[in-house]
Amino acid sequence: MSTDPQSPKGKGTRLTHLDEKGAAHMVDVSQKPVTTRKATAKGLIEMTAATRDLVMASALKKGDALATARIAGIMAAKRTADLVPLCHPLSLSAIRIDFEACAEGIEMTATVSTCERTGVEMEALTAVSVAALTLYDMAKAVERSMRIGQIRLVSKEGGASGDYHETA
Amino acid sequence: MSTDPQSPKGKGTRLTHLDEKGAAHMVDVSQKPVTTRKATAKGLIEMTAATRDLVMASALKKGDALATARIAGIMAAKRTADLVPLCHPLSLSAIRIDFEACAEGIEMTATVSTCERTGVEMEALTAVSVAALTLYDMAKAVERSMRIGQIRLVSKEGGASGDYHETA
Amino acid sequence: MSTDPQSPKGKGTRLTHLDEKGAAHMVDVSQKPVTTRKATAKGLIEMTAATRDLVMASALKKGDALATARIAGIMAAKRTADLVPLCHPLSLSAIRIDFEACAEGIEMTATVSTCERTGVEMEALTAVSVAALTLYDMAKAVERSMRIGQIRLVSKEGGASGDYHETA
Amino acid sequence: MSTDPQSPKGKGTRLTHLDEKGAAHMVDVSQKPVTTRKATAKGLIEMTAATRDLVMASALKKGDALATARIAGIMAAKRTADLVPLCHPLSLSAIRIDFEACAEGIEMTATVSTCERTGVEMEALTAVSVAALTLYDMAKAVERSMRIGQIRLVSKEGGASGDYHETA
Amino acid sequence: MSTDPQSPKGKGTRLTHLDEKGAAHMVDVSQKPVTTRKATAKGLIEMTAATRDLVMASALKKGDALATARIAGIMAAKRTADLVPLCHPLSLSAIRIDFEACAEGIEMTATVSTCERTGVEMEALTAVSVAALTLYDMAKAVERSMRIGQIRLVSKEGGASGDYHETA
Amino acid sequence: MSTDPQSPKGKGTRLTHLDEKGAAHMVDVSQKPVTTRKATAKGLIEMTAATRDLVMASALKKGDALATARIAGIMAAKRTADLVPLCHPLSLSAIRIDFEACAEGIEMTATVSTCERTGVEMEALTAVSVAALTLYDMAKAVERSMRIGQIRLVSKEGGASGDYHETA
Repeated sequence: MSTDPQSPKGKGTRLTHLDEKGAAHMVDVSQKPVTTRKATAKGLIEMTAATRDLVMASALKKGDALATARIAGIMAAKRTADLVPLCHPLSLSAIRIDFEACAEGIEMTATVSTCERTGVEMEALTAVSVAALTLYDMAKAVERSMRIGQIRLVSKEGGASGDYHETA
Repeated sequence: MSTDPQSPKGKGTRLTHLDEKGAAHMVDVSQKPVTTRKATAKGLIEMTAATRDLVMASALKKGDALATARIAGIMAAKRTADLVPLCHPLSLSAIRIDFEACAEGIEMTATVSTCERTGVEMEALTAVSVAALTLYDMAKAVERSMRIGQIRLVSKEGGASGDYHETA
Repeated sequence: MSTDPQSPKGKGTRLTHLDEKGAAHMVDVSQKPVTTRKATAKGLIEMTAATRDLVMASALKKGDALATARIAGIMAAKRTADLVPLCHPLSLSAIRIDFEACAEGIEMTATVSTCERTGVEMEALTAVSVAALTLYDMAKAVERSMRIGQIRLVSKEGGASGDYHETA
Repeated sequence: MSTDPQSPKGKGTRLTHLDEKGAAHMVDVSQKPVTTRKATAKGLIEMTAATRDLVMASALKKGDALATARIAGIMAAKRTADLVPLCHPLSLSAIRIDFEACAEGIEMTATVSTCERTGVEMEALTAVSVAALTLYDMAKAVERSMRIGQIRLVSKEGGASGDYHETA
Repeated sequence: MSTDPQSPKGKGTRLTHLDEKGAAHMVDVSQKPVTTRKATAKGLIEMTAATRDLVMASALKKGDALATARIAGIMAAKRTADLVPLCHPLSLSAIRIDFEACAEGIEMTATVSTCERTGVEMEALTAVSVAALTLYDMAKAVERSMRIGQIRLVSKEGGASGDYHETA
Repeated sequence: MSTDPQSPKGKGTRLTHLDEKGAAHMVDVSQKPVTTRKATAKGLIEMTAATRDLVMASALKKGDALATARIAGIMAAKRTADLVPLCHPLSLSAIRIDFEACAEGIEMTATVSTCERTGVEMEALTAVSVAALTLYDMAKAVERSMRIGQIRLVSKEGGASGDYHETA
């Protein structure tokens, strides 16, 4: 039985991006239908409360700290296929990135949509990763020991492999 | 007193990448000396032991799994200034990325060197992040709940702001 | 009443690319139909008659002056979504750029077509802008006081928001 | 006599970026000294007072309108050699972009510095052009008849060809 | 008579990418149907048997030599429209690249698929070219006199202009 | 003995771009001196005399055929490190590309210069390759059986590994 979303039927035995000889290739999606697909990813950049407050306060005072990270994440999502070698180039129909202060630092959430033959999980994860790198860059003169983590897929809708929602 | 490497003298009070009005800018490094600089970053992609073994075994069997992630990380390091808005474009003199299987999954280490007016921390962190995204992409059909984390600067040498070594 | 094409119904009150909190996002076009769309933009690079004649004569004598600017504009149109942060990545079906000498310098006209869910105004405007920058670059050793201007949308066809034609 | 900065000695008779047969090439700067260079460019995006107030107010209310355009301009400056075919790839040491509301719309000023063998006029002009395109993109749903103009070099310092300052 | 696939009817008299005045443009494909298309290209990098054996042996010993060239070719295929000025930007549905040792060196074969309005010959040829350049780069310290050649279209399927198969 | 330029001392036994475990890395050039370096590469695109005459005549009649290929080659040279995974990003000081009709088709020659810690062979070879791909693209509607070949390094000057000149 294979209803576990982590291990879809028949796929668990080998890496689909490598062929039978182990060679990397961009897998053929030409037989997959064009459907509306959406993916959301999250991540966390851990920092001291002082650094976090500096970043969030900058935003409150009309500074560009969060805007810079948001724009970097949006632009990176559009360049996912240029960064991740085996990703398919896709037209994206929507991208949004949100930031929220939490006890450990700043949590980022990215949601990406498309009408294509394959999903946009990598685009959402790339948006989160580059937004986090941009926050790190802007705050690194204040705190070098920040740490980027908890980057993961939170949900995925549309497409033949079924929906996915992170288990709490 | 401010000998703590995380909080260098006089820098802790504001984000250097924003000016006095809060506007983002690429900070002026033209007065900084050209020196040899090196930075190392680490990160972890957490996955089940089964997925980890699949990835590592593919590499053992001459498959391209780790090579693909390594090349993606190296190419991303070269594109850091194109991804992180306020990073300076730099000539890089060396890049290397290593992978090691551990209990939680696969640990990545990237080391980048340059002879320039500013450091390469962001290049090392970007290399780790994109290598991790590439591993995620290749293994996601097997396990969607992988998680990328612990992305951090491990050490930094050269440059006026002093060396930095992660405290264990 | 709001039939004026410059100020479409209900849109005049806020910037659509910012959400209710002011955060930038790439707006969702997934519900918009795929249709054939075309946009034309114009711009002018002002220069002395001597510089203009040098550029145009170079073209007449088989020199690459206009060809270089034309290729730069065509390639930039294809990279619009990589330059303008909130633009959607699009497949383009045609691009052309024309140059015409006039009293003030050289006028550029770019026309771009697509079959997509959103229009190509930004692609046409980007083509004109980068063609103009390229002419500036090639002629700047002769005249530094050139001036790029009058970059504007001339017409737009296809899509739900209606056609647009510049009023003379 | 040739002290006029627009027409430096011996350069007025042909386009330096084309060889004697008219073929485009990237001119050889290997014999030029590495010096500190700076360039400032300006441009204007004309819009109705209502649109201008919407953009500026968004910025006042912590919206990302100007931040998005500023980041787009900074990133475009770093990609100048990738957009303008005959520009030399350069390490840039500083980039800043400012916006100011004026009667006709919003005026943009970009300043770029480098320590290289050639100047950064094109980088400053490209930053202004792409910042203007980004503002156009964000405000186009409100007003399609905006017009980008007055893009010009305001000043240039450093390098063998002498300083240049726009005459008022 | 003109049923020869190399010289389709009415096309032999001028270059379709130049208009009647000789100006380059991206030809309009908006009236062409979206169909599944595939192209295969081949090329050869000539080298001494010693160099060839070094490259192939490295692959046998789990080294990254061929994997690096394969990834470079796949990523270059996705960037074809960014490299070849008059190519249309396309969504690609599959890319694969194979290497085979032969008497003269190493032969490369790239196959690319799409569901678009135009074919992917240029994507397959670009993949082969950049894979060859990457092999050259990795082996050039051993042998500078390697030679890249025989880059050609082997077959093409789908699209209005008919299938094409290289004649033996 | 090892004065043969093709097989510099001690280098012939392994691929320098792979470490002792076979992992690809960007080799460290930080200890190499900054010197002026130049490289020239050649290549040939074979075509029928009819196609060749069409391309050359287009150029004679002020058409953009050769200019488009030349600009594509120059822009590709600047992007070499973005295409060839283990190439170092470099500032280039000059690039030129020439075309010459010959019995078999059109021969291309690219010369690239730099003042850096490593040479520009790959930049010259990349310029030739992409110029050839662009010619193929423009003439492919006329002749699909063109063939790109004889891409090779012709000469190399500057740098510790010594000059190299192709043996006739």
